Amino acid sequence: MARIILHEVGPRDGLQMEGQVVPIEKKEAWIRGLMDSGVDIVQVGSFVHPEKVPQMADTDELFRRLAGKKSPVILSALVLNEKGLERGLACGVDMFCMGASASDTHSRKNTGMESAEAARRIIGMAKAAAAAGRKVQVSVQSAFGCGFEGAVDEERVLAVARAYLEAGLRSISLADTAGHAHPAQVERLFGALFRMDEGVECACHFHNTYGLGMANIFAAMRAGATSFETSCAGLGGCPFTKVAAGNVATEDFVWALRRQGLRRDVNLASLIGIARGVAAHFGREMPGFVYKIQEGA
Amino acid sequence: MARIILHEVGPRDGLQMEGQVVPIEKKEAWIRGLMDSGVDIVQVGSFVHPEKVPQMADTDELFRRLAGKKSPVILSALVLNEKGLERGLACGVDMFCMGASASDTHSRKNTGMESAEAARRIIGMAKAAAAAGRKVQVSVQSAFGCGFEGAVDEERVLAVARAYLEAGLRSISLADTAGHAHPAQVERLFGALFRMDEGVECACHFHNTYGLGMANIFAAMRAGATSFETSCAGLGGCPFTKVAAGNVATEDFVWALRRQGLRRDVNLASLIGIARGVAAHFGREMPGFVYKIQEGA
Repeated sequence: MARIILHEVGPRDGLQMEGQVVPIEKKEAWIRGLMDSGVDIVQVGSFVHPEKVPQMADTDELFRRLAGKKSPVILSALVLNEKGLERGLACGVDMFCMGASASDTHSRKNTGMESAEAARRIIGMAKAAAAAGRKVQVSVQSAFGCGFEGAVDEERVLAVARAYLEAGLRSISLADTAGHAHPAQVERLFGALFRMDEGVECACHFHNTYGLGMANIFAAMRAGATSFETSCAGLGGCPFTKVAAGNVATEDFVWALRRQGLRRDVNLASLIGIARGVAAHFGREMPGFVYKIQEGA
Repeated sequence: MARIILHEVGPRDGLQMEGQVVPIEKKEAWIRGLMDSGVDIVQVGSFVHPEKVPQMADTDELFRRLAGKKSPVILSALVLNEKGLERGLACGVDMFCMGASASDTHSRKNTGMESAEAARRIIGMAKAAAAAGRKVQVSVQSAFGCGFEGAVDEERVLAVARAYLEAGLRSISLADTAGHAHPAQVERLFGALFRMDEGVECACHFHNTYGLGMANIFAAMRAGATSFETSCAGLGGCPFTKVAAGNVATEDFVWALRRQGLRRDVNLASLIGIARGVAAHFGREMPGFVYKIQEGA
């Protein structure tokens, strides 16, 4: 089995939807802790308009603070447009994540563009980031259903993926933005993606709206996906869809992998400690399971 | 694919661990609602000492009230010993569920007997129930790990299952009493069970302690299990293990099945209504996901 890549997205996908802005010192401490725990990639933030998403306004500064890191951990960021890409290139982002929605309605709400046009724009940005020597991961959002449109035709998802592949972009994430995915669909869609290009590097991103996040992760793993976007304590959700719950908790996924003898290099106790810190900071119970368990209790 | 059998265990596995005793009228209404929703089996309660588990003291009376039912739904009960079996035979139980733990420590705490002796006793009870014309399902508890012992050797699990099969008992449930199961283990163990007897009717029962309940259900389904024990709103847990969380919510599982075109005969809206009623009764958020979603919100 290929090595499982752990992509922690809590600091971005989680914190962007919290009502309160987390102080930069706290964010930095969480991110450094996550890096030290041995995950492979940490998504630090996104480059969006600071007035539109004040929770992400400190992303440039966070990257500058983390720039001198001695760690092998890759620091990623989400970018939505060329302006964001420019900011990210200026402050030392290792890996750019960007995507287009397979749902025209979701795409228009997010970008003002329909799916195909948004994909063309993303491809241009991705090429620019790659030309600048950065890693790039492109995603198809609402790949398993849309909070606005409901079902999304698989051919629409594959059309966006095909455009990426034709542009030479082979690190592709299928994102279940609204949480509609079910395991059989996940296997089918990743299977179709691998049939288009057996060398594609597949990532996945599932929301737990209907309680299927972990089941979908295992379905994706079975289908050959190797990179998994999860979030500390299960933080997360998307403010631009009607209904969305958190991500699968990173520490829950790592616990499950350990039970299978995988990724025992990751410091689970450290991840649990950070998840508890996150829950304590927000003063509420987070969606993760494992962090709540007191071993020996 | 074989028909998926839905075995609702909330009224037993869920309510037995609640601090408060639910009034019989409310239980009866929930159970009738669950029956009307189209699940196949409802576990009404268990026959245990009323002082030890007061939450289950009304099980005999509940069966008497439900005796005149015109419904095809099977009413099951958990029995732990011969006294309980006697009570269940007297009040019209359709299906007896009973089991022995694969963990000696768990078995001793529950029954005062080690695993093999407990299995022999269960076999005697199961034969008596079958001889009385009732359906019987025997289970292996702590089949995937034990809250006291940790890992449980798969050979121990298969030894209990083998004893059941040799006694002619072919409806077997593997129960993840403490919630330790992970999907690869689930597939392996059910696979081993089918290799012992390809005609065995496999049921499964997972707790969601570490957030893997639904992933384990899908793994069991892939391995050939056909009967799934879930609980309304995700009620549940076992007071006799150190750490245990609720079951997978029935309505979440039914939602997932519908997404795959399965069991569309079940009234999901009705199940969601009951789950909301359960949450309202206890005045707290329950573990289920789907019941919390207001469609169109």
